[in-house]
Amino acid sequence: MTPKIARFLAGESLPSPCLVFDVDRLEANFRNLRRALPLVQIYYAVKANPAAPVLERLSTLGSRFDAASFEEIRNCLAAGAKPADISYGNTIKKTAAIRAAYAAGVRLYAFDSAEELKKLAENAPGAQVYCRILVANEGADWPLSRKFGAEIGLARELMLRAGDLGLDPCGLSFHVGSQQTRTASYEAAIGRVAMLFTDLIEAGVNVRMLNLGGGFPVSYRESVPPIDNFATAIMDAMTAHFGNQLPEMLIEPGRCLVADAGVVASEVVLVSRRSYNDPVRWVYLDIGRFGGLAETENEAIRYRIATPHDGGPIGPVAIAGPTCDGADILYQQTPYQLPIALVAGDRILLEGTGAYVTTYASQCFNGFPPLAEHYL
Amino acid sequence: MTPKIARFLAGESLPSPCLVFDVDRLEANFRNLRRALPLVQIYYAVKANPAAPVLERLSTLGSRFDAASFEEIRNCLAAGAKPADISYGNTIKKTAAIRAAYAAGVRLYAFDSAEELKKLAENAPGAQVYCRILVANEGADWPLSRKFGAEIGLARELMLRAGDLGLDPCGLSFHVGSQQTRTASYEAAIGRVAMLFTDLIEAGVNVRMLNLGGGFPVSYRESVPPIDNFATAIMDAMTAHFGNQLPEMLIEPGRCLVADAGVVASEVVLVSRRSYNDPVRWVYLDIGRFGGLAETENEAIRYRIATPHDGGPIGPVAIAGPTCDGADILYQQTPYQLPIALVAGDRILLEGTGAYVTTYASQCFNGFPPLAEHYL
Repeated sequence: MTPKIARFLAGESLPSPCLVFDVDRLEANFRNLRRALPLVQIYYAVKANPAAPVLERLSTLGSRFDAASFEEIRNCLAAGAKPADISYGNTIKKTAAIRAAYAAGVRLYAFDSAEELKKLAENAPGAQVYCRILVANEGADWPLSRKFGAEIGLARELMLRAGDLGLDPCGLSFHVGSQQTRTASYEAAIGRVAMLFTDLIEAGVNVRMLNLGGGFPVSYRESVPPIDNFATAIMDAMTAHFGNQLPEMLIEPGRCLVADAGVVASEVVLVSRRSYNDPVRWVYLDIGRFGGLAETENEAIRYRIATPHDGGPIGPVAIAGPTCDGADILYQQTPYQLPIALVAGDRILLEGTGAYVTTYASQCFNGFPPLAEHYL
Repeated sequence: MTPKIARFLAGESLPSPCLVFDVDRLEANFRNLRRALPLVQIYYAVKANPAAPVLERLSTLGSRFDAASFEEIRNCLAAGAKPADISYGNTIKKTAAIRAAYAAGVRLYAFDSAEELKKLAENAPGAQVYCRILVANEGADWPLSRKFGAEIGLARELMLRAGDLGLDPCGLSFHVGSQQTRTASYEAAIGRVAMLFTDLIEAGVNVRMLNLGGGFPVSYRESVPPIDNFATAIMDAMTAHFGNQLPEMLIEPGRCLVADAGVVASEVVLVSRRSYNDPVRWVYLDIGRFGGLAETENEAIRYRIATPHDGGPIGPVAIAGPTCDGADILYQQTPYQLPIALVAGDRILLEGTGAYVTTYASQCFNGFPPLAEHYL
């Protein structure tokens, strides 16, 4: 938690739950990432947190933007981004959305199938397109599955076809999965894509850009390697495969820019036991899986929790959300321990919740309104 | 799909995705349930679909309401329900919400812990309270886990204590899990609770109500036993355990009243393959797990899908939502087959989506707005 957030929480009596976000921390994270990877163009993954103060600050800093939908593109433009700063990175786009993006001046699009390529050729003529390659996701806490990415052989054929369709097949991309903790995953993916890259150049394709995706991890309960480790691994792998002929490089960071800039303040609704002799207390918060903490599904993302009683004796807990849904449990397997003194009415803090929280919140499940947001 | 919905869909060019809901079908479902269980008081589980037209129709029909939050209570009152018709059925309630409900005249509250009982005694003095018992959830497609319910020994002690605290310990409740397909689960739960019921009467507690919960299943892809089977099993079990001394009986149906009254109309965004020789096509819809279809988590609820090409040749598919989230996959393990002719732009229908869809929708994940709703 940043000093600015601490002062704000101390001074305000905020309705709970809410997200409090320090935009200065976001700026520091952005500057640090640019320092670590000076040769790489940063496209902020808007989906991680699309709030206007986030997009505006990043636009001021010269960030570019990776958008998942036309709605996100519109928000980027409203925040001061130029169309040339925006990549439409979702490989699944409605025809109407492609047309709207093209009309707005966006000229860079992702694809990973013949069918999407055809839609792009028809609705975004002449645009720069890059093909997303299927790579392994081992080591990611939130893996991306086979939903996205073309296999190498298909990708090669599609990149050749893109030129025939009047598009500019400018690059390749991959994504190693979100909250990726292994530098080796980037190295392996770069090696895999580099071969295709060389092959395409030999085939006469003017491929010149490599989009390394996102996935850079942040420290939640468990600490992760610093960004510099990933930067070094990436640049070493790029140099090993491309030598002095480095292509234009892009990354799409989301989580690592915004996660630790945000804190969710939540109220304990109930602390109870299922039976007298059960050592595990159930702690129910006023935010759960359907109030924004969707990434606790399968306990994938394990947030740090601060309470007013920290330092006192602790005991094992299961932690759940406030709804009548039996699936609305945050942590039951992960061995969380919270203070014995914790009671209903206490305010607790879920740290590192600046990414992938506000937008996931259901509009009104069980009647609860979406998470309130405060940007400082 | 009902004729009214079919006519509406044929006549309108609706933005996609959207829910179309036939309130007359809801009424027919309510009347059928009341016919099947004439001795049982129906408390509609508002969380299944809290839309005003749903609450208003049910209020007109004399339904009572099971609310999960004060916001839901407020909506019931606005729809014409009287405070005496409302049960505050969530065992996890903020103190402020208990106070607001009590001030609004609500006098019936669930609990399953000593801590919640204390909150009720302090903030809803003299109220009728019922204790939720932990029962097995085998046979439920959407089980409720250990998040809710007190073990029998604890429940007995809490019911005795409720009287000491000035509350009216009027009843017991259980929940066999949602989309429960086995009548035996109700029989077992009734047997379990009946023993405690008798025990409490002998101990001098004026316990007189049994809340049998909800969970009644509907036919999605797989058909389920008709409601009459559950009604017969329940009444037989009640008679076996209570003879002529039947307590007041409540049920909290949600899904079985609203599910088949609703249809989600969705657009196919993309149909693609990961490689040329892959027999499985990926079908991407403009609605997914974060756009409302949250109950497809772990492929628990398997909706029927109708397409414009039904009747033609079919082939295996994986089905996913429109977001960049790798977890936004509806069906990958369940062997769905869809027409070979299916292409981007086709309108498809997800049937039986009148329950647990609209409220789960994220407020703006990936920039997509929540599901639009039309009530006919």
